[in-house]
Amino acid sequence: MTSKKRLLSTKLGLPQRLWLPRGFAFAGTAAGIKRGGQLDLGLVEFAPGSTAAAVFTRNRVVAAPLVVGQRHLERGRGRLRAVVVNSGNANCATGAAGLSASQGICKQAAKLLGVWPHEVFPASTGVIGVPLPTERILEVLPELLRRRRSSLAAAQRFARAIMTTDTRPKLAAARFRCGDGVATLLGVAKGAGMIHPRLNVSGKHATMLAYFFTDAAATPAQLNRLLRAACARTFNRISIDGDTSTNDTVLLAASGASGLRVRTRADSGRFGEALDGVCASLAQQIVSDGEGVKHVVGLRVEGARSEAEAERVARSIANSPLVKTAWAGADPNWGRILAAVGNSGAPIDPKRVDIFYGGLQVCRGGSARPFDERAAHRYLGQPQFQVRVRLGRGRAGVTFLTCDLTTDYVHVNAHYRT
Amino acid sequence: MTSKKRLLSTKLGLPQRLWLPRGFAFAGTAAGIKRGGQLDLGLVEFAPGSTAAAVFTRNRVVAAPLVVGQRHLERGRGRLRAVVVNSGNANCATGAAGLSASQGICKQAAKLLGVWPHEVFPASTGVIGVPLPTERILEVLPELLRRRRSSLAAAQRFARAIMTTDTRPKLAAARFRCGDGVATLLGVAKGAGMIHPRLNVSGKHATMLAYFFTDAAATPAQLNRLLRAACARTFNRISIDGDTSTNDTVLLAASGASGLRVRTRADSGRFGEALDGVCASLAQQIVSDGEGVKHVVGLRVEGARSEAEAERVARSIANSPLVKTAWAGADPNWGRILAAVGNSGAPIDPKRVDIFYGGLQVCRGGSARPFDERAAHRYLGQPQFQVRVRLGRGRAGVTFLTCDLTTDYVHVNAHYRT
Repeated sequence: MTSKKRLLSTKLGLPQRLWLPRGFAFAGTAAGIKRGGQLDLGLVEFAPGSTAAAVFTRNRVVAAPLVVGQRHLERGRGRLRAVVVNSGNANCATGAAGLSASQGICKQAAKLLGVWPHEVFPASTGVIGVPLPTERILEVLPELLRRRRSSLAAAQRFARAIMTTDTRPKLAAARFRCGDGVATLLGVAKGAGMIHPRLNVSGKHATMLAYFFTDAAATPAQLNRLLRAACARTFNRISIDGDTSTNDTVLLAASGASGLRVRTRADSGRFGEALDGVCASLAQQIVSDGEGVKHVVGLRVEGARSEAEAERVARSIANSPLVKTAWAGADPNWGRILAAVGNSGAPIDPKRVDIFYGGLQVCRGGSARPFDERAAHRYLGQPQFQVRVRLGRGRAGVTFLTCDLTTDYVHVNAHYRT
Repeated sequence: MTSKKRLLSTKLGLPQRLWLPRGFAFAGTAAGIKRGGQLDLGLVEFAPGSTAAAVFTRNRVVAAPLVVGQRHLERGRGRLRAVVVNSGNANCATGAAGLSASQGICKQAAKLLGVWPHEVFPASTGVIGVPLPTERILEVLPELLRRRRSSLAAAQRFARAIMTTDTRPKLAAARFRCGDGVATLLGVAKGAGMIHPRLNVSGKHATMLAYFFTDAAATPAQLNRLLRAACARTFNRISIDGDTSTNDTVLLAASGASGLRVRTRADSGRFGEALDGVCASLAQQIVSDGEGVKHVVGLRVEGARSEAEAERVARSIANSPLVKTAWAGADPNWGRILAAVGNSGAPIDPKRVDIFYGGLQVCRGGSARPFDERAAHRYLGQPQFQVRVRLGRGRAGVTFLTCDLTTDYVHVNAHYRT
């Protein structure tokens, strides 16, 4: 299936308007997992009767909370009452103790909320291979619960609590017609590094964190279908550094508190569009706030035999250190883009490849096309720019969002734990 | 076939002794392709009757000289009389003009040498997508030919002429028993960036540049077999930045000028061993002189089902920006190594994975094993260190040589053309 709609773009525009969906209470606090009293523990409570669906990372190394979260969703058949998220520690490569830690937190949160443990969905993000300081988390859970509020300010606080190397919280919202009313959808995400989500939208398993909350009512099956479709075309088409995390998790929860139910195909279509839009906005916010990012790059690959082929070529370009460092220097060195196309594994014919920076064609039929170097350098000096690659093989195309590789990225990651 | 012998190691040791094979004359000069009068054009003339074999990059974008070189080898059925190499320009993505340029240079060199054009084997390395300044090259060819000498000093000059961002020339040599005499093998290579050779050792096509010259006599078929076997286990097991070049070429030439012929299986075995050793030395020299490299990492992946599986896991670790930046900071953040193992595509079970820094185990069965952080940090602070990963799936293993990703790499490549 080829979709013509381009969801991802480098144009972030003005800060988006946010709306609060009914049936959700948010909180964030500092549990002492991160240093200096930063927020590092977040909670969202869902109204009774809420449904949910999730997708997880395709990394074969999967953090403990993903195992527990998936089990809980299955056990409750898509009924959830809360998410608990800590930042500063991924609870990954922590063995049986990591699983117990994640289960213990769910159990304690469930007790305090008066729900079943399997109705609590855990998540963690941060350093891999360090035991989770469970005691600290359990200690502050009562205070975290007391702080929960149904307000945008509380949602912002939750958004800050799940940040790692992010420099700003990431939220987006939309409203959509549902039956004879208007429902609200709010999305919250974190990103920054180890961002190359390959969410398992076909099977069960994806680790950047993103949460979506709507006050429409929907079945877990409806939520599942809409979430997988949205992730495939947004989060699965971004890359900061090409490293797929062990903790990527995206959750969509529906409280039904608006009294509106997704019944018709039209309702579902409008819900899907709203979700696509909010996912795209968060995906853009994640890339533009990536570690050390100075240039956000909208990569359009066209003329492929299939979307999968276009995506393969886009990933090869987006993950090439030589392409990314040239972008850091605003260097119109398109030969590196062509080399990355040739390394993609797609059976391309170099003689049919065209490359453009914005409106400026720099390569035609696999060869240099004379262009104004200074104009190109100026264009690539902007904080956002477009690269378009035509393969000349077919009619499929994708838009992929990525960024440059800067000395700041190296600094952040050479000294992440020090 | 599982080979137990570990060819690659981080231990470069003392400067190796070099020997000069008979039947080769070397030259290098400045043609003005690079700035500031740097050497950028090299030539090696082979004695009459010389044979050769070559392997090329697997990138689907292939530079003009590779197309011409392969054609010449086929046309002459493995008989060659010279190589001509320029640095500073890759003659890639240059279309029909690029092919003509490469052919024109071969033709002119052939005329001056009194040989057939298809007996000249061209190569180029440098920026992609810029027309080759053929006129300048043609102008200096007569002078280049006059300068050719059968001396180690001239071979050193050739080695400097093929450098791009390399900071030092790369040579290695060995002697081997052949029949009732001793033959000599000399290797010359360049590397520095876009180094992730995937030489097509099974088919016809690999781009870093490496040349091997022996004064034994051997058939093109013998040379082919020995060269492919050596490349598969040396050059195809190194990575600086994970970008496979459009120009990688490795050539093995045999002049027969020693009067010794490779006849028996024992001769061939000893020749192969000498070639393996010289390839391994040059592969090590390439990684240790990689762009911005501060740490050379010997990566040993063991317990795989097959060498191919071990290699896949090693590549995933070696090409992870998060692993490489942690190494830049001497940070024992082994969780990133485990995540890269999980992203390799190999069907590993995280619960069976062990990770060691030198003799220090940091991960056992996929989980943290308490270790002395300061000792690990000190170990990783060395210019060379070893990382060992055990998959617990089988008995196959490979040694792969790689390096860290530093701010210097970003600097070099953000401003490569400025």
